[in-house]
Amino acid sequence: MAGFELDPKLAADTAEIDRWALSRVLLMEDANYPWLILVPARAGLRDFHDLASEDLPAMMAEIVRASRTLEALFDPVKLNVAALGNQVPQLHIHVIARRTDDPAWPKPVWGAAPARAYDDAARSQRIAGLHEAFTRF
Amino acid sequence: MAGFELDPKLAADTAEIDRWALSRVLLMEDANYPWLILVPARAGLRDFHDLASEDLPAMMAEIVRASRTLEALFDPVKLNVAALGNQVPQLHIHVIARRTDDPAWPKPVWGAAPARAYDDAARSQRIAGLHEAFTRF
Repeated sequence: MAGFELDPKLAADTAEIDRWALSRVLLMEDANYPWLILVPARAGLRDFHDLASEDLPAMMAEIVRASRTLEALFDPVKLNVAALGNQVPQLHIHVIARRTDDPAWPKPVWGAAPARAYDDAARSQRIAGLHEAFTRF
Repeated sequence: MAGFELDPKLAADTAEIDRWALSRVLLMEDANYPWLILVPARAGLRDFHDLASEDLPAMMAEIVRASRTLEALFDPVKLNVAALGNQVPQLHIHVIARRTDDPAWPKPVWGAAPARAYDDAARSQRIAGLHEAFTRF
């Protein structure tokens, strides 16, 4: 991961939960949704197809792991998985647990409702819960 | 692919371009963006992590192939890759070429602008161009 640095806007909008074989695992600072962001720790990636072919299996496995963890913890009706990056070009993959009572449903989350910051206790509790659950998937 | 049937709303909103090893390759009926949809032809899939582990390499390869084709043909500033499915639960992956002069930029495309239908000649030309380009990726 020579030369990899997390984009400053991603860093500002998230809290780091874990580091996996390929990706930094971040919690989006928006308590409206259980929302993870995976950032492959490789320099210079913009789009999904920029991933080296040898990194694709780990990328897949990590998306699946993040999805299964959110599914187990939050009983979502759908998982949304997306690499958009129109605002922050560094490749990052959103993995979001959606519920029919969340403030954006059934629309995509981006731009649908103002982000709602976690309070410190809730953030710590969520990170701890995710960190523990990752060990099971 | 026993039991697989394309969701009727997906079928109504798209035109089929090709069938790959795993996915149906569809053109979204919205001339605002070069927009492909990949639908893995497996029955009963909803979320990305529902894919069988033996199908993940093909899924990745097909996302990369679709992305590289759009990149070569349309010179996008970003590719958006997303499995959302809040409206149509059948697993389908959007692969969208984004340009800074498209009607949604820099927002996600969903809900940003009314879909603009292709006229018949433009649709046929686009499908033929994509079909030819797929042979190169």
